[in-house]
Amino acid sequence: MESLRRHMEAILSITDEEFEYIASHFEKKKLRKHAYLVREGDLVNNEYFVVKGCLKAYVYDEEKVKEYIFQFAVEDWWITDREAIIKGTKATINIDCLEDCELLSITKANRDKLCAEMPKFKDYLFIKVSNGYVSLQKRVLTLIRNNARERYDLFIKQYPHLPQRIPKTLIASYLGVSRETLSRLSK
Amino acid sequence: MESLRRHMEAILSITDEEFEYIASHFEKKKLRKHAYLVREGDLVNNEYFVVKGCLKAYVYDEEKVKEYIFQFAVEDWWITDREAIIKGTKATINIDCLEDCELLSITKANRDKLCAEMPKFKDYLFIKVSNGYVSLQKRVLTLIRNNARERYDLFIKQYPHLPQRIPKTLIASYLGVSRETLSRLSK
Repeated sequence: MESLRRHMEAILSITDEEFEYIASHFEKKKLRKHAYLVREGDLVNNEYFVVKGCLKAYVYDEEKVKEYIFQFAVEDWWITDREAIIKGTKATINIDCLEDCELLSITKANRDKLCAEMPKFKDYLFIKVSNGYVSLQKRVLTLIRNNARERYDLFIKQYPHLPQRIPKTLIASYLGVSRETLSRLSK
Repeated sequence: MESLRRHMEAILSITDEEFEYIASHFEKKKLRKHAYLVREGDLVNNEYFVVKGCLKAYVYDEEKVKEYIFQFAVEDWWITDREAIIKGTKATINIDCLEDCELLSITKANRDKLCAEMPKFKDYLFIKVSNGYVSLQKRVLTLIRNNARERYDLFIKQYPHLPQRIPKTLIASYLGVSRETLSRLSK
């Protein structure tokens, strides 16, 4: 739980008692490499904080062959199908593990309970989703403004350690460029 | 102020007294077509709710010629440079009016004050930014997955009234396709 605490304390201050109470609402979850965390069609009832490992969130094309990756998550990131959680609908995306993963899982009910009981926890989530909004806005800009070379350079600059952990094919999908183009750029 | 109230009440219930108090923290702002709401380099101290009109948020390329549009805003939308507001940095984007506009403006200080005083107002903003996050995620997916034709069709489906209000060149920029391609598609 210490990594969640460090992550929260980077945003706001928190006492031992407060954190202990927050932590009591989370469960630990371990998944093997290649395991699914969320599958299209699942009911989604949890949000996940990544303690260790790397995951990808993606959708398939209509033929269920090609993957379109819209998010990676590594240590200290949150991941879930946010739309399914918000709307109470079934998952429209897949999330699976690129490495063995350790996660902290919180149910929607517990999250809402904590938000109601502890304004500080709600503040933390509010700040996280606001920052996430800004990051996605930058990603949209990159996709409409930058060519393949620029997208790759920005990705490396923003996430210098990810290329060592993530296969090139997947980075190419995330950047919306072909595998061949990325191979050329990353040499 | 009635449109803000309607918009809030679509998300949560609110009494006359509560809304009156909320409304007292907003100011009305009118801008002419082509006027800037935010300019790159400005200090950004406000968020804006659109009562009437249409705006675009964009960045320039390095030569300050081409515009890359990442958001339109019409009635009932919120718009600002969210990154500048969150980080307290200067604007890195431009927002200007595509039509004469009427806005409701709230300062960051008043927004934070209202959030502290009225959990309901904070809930409203939290839900708005969460929904915005999901919309941006869908937009990212569209940009990495869909071709020009599909992007345009999805845009029309999602915002059926915008093509009548927004010049094709600007929609092309928003979709990340060339003006020529869009002209072909929208015939």
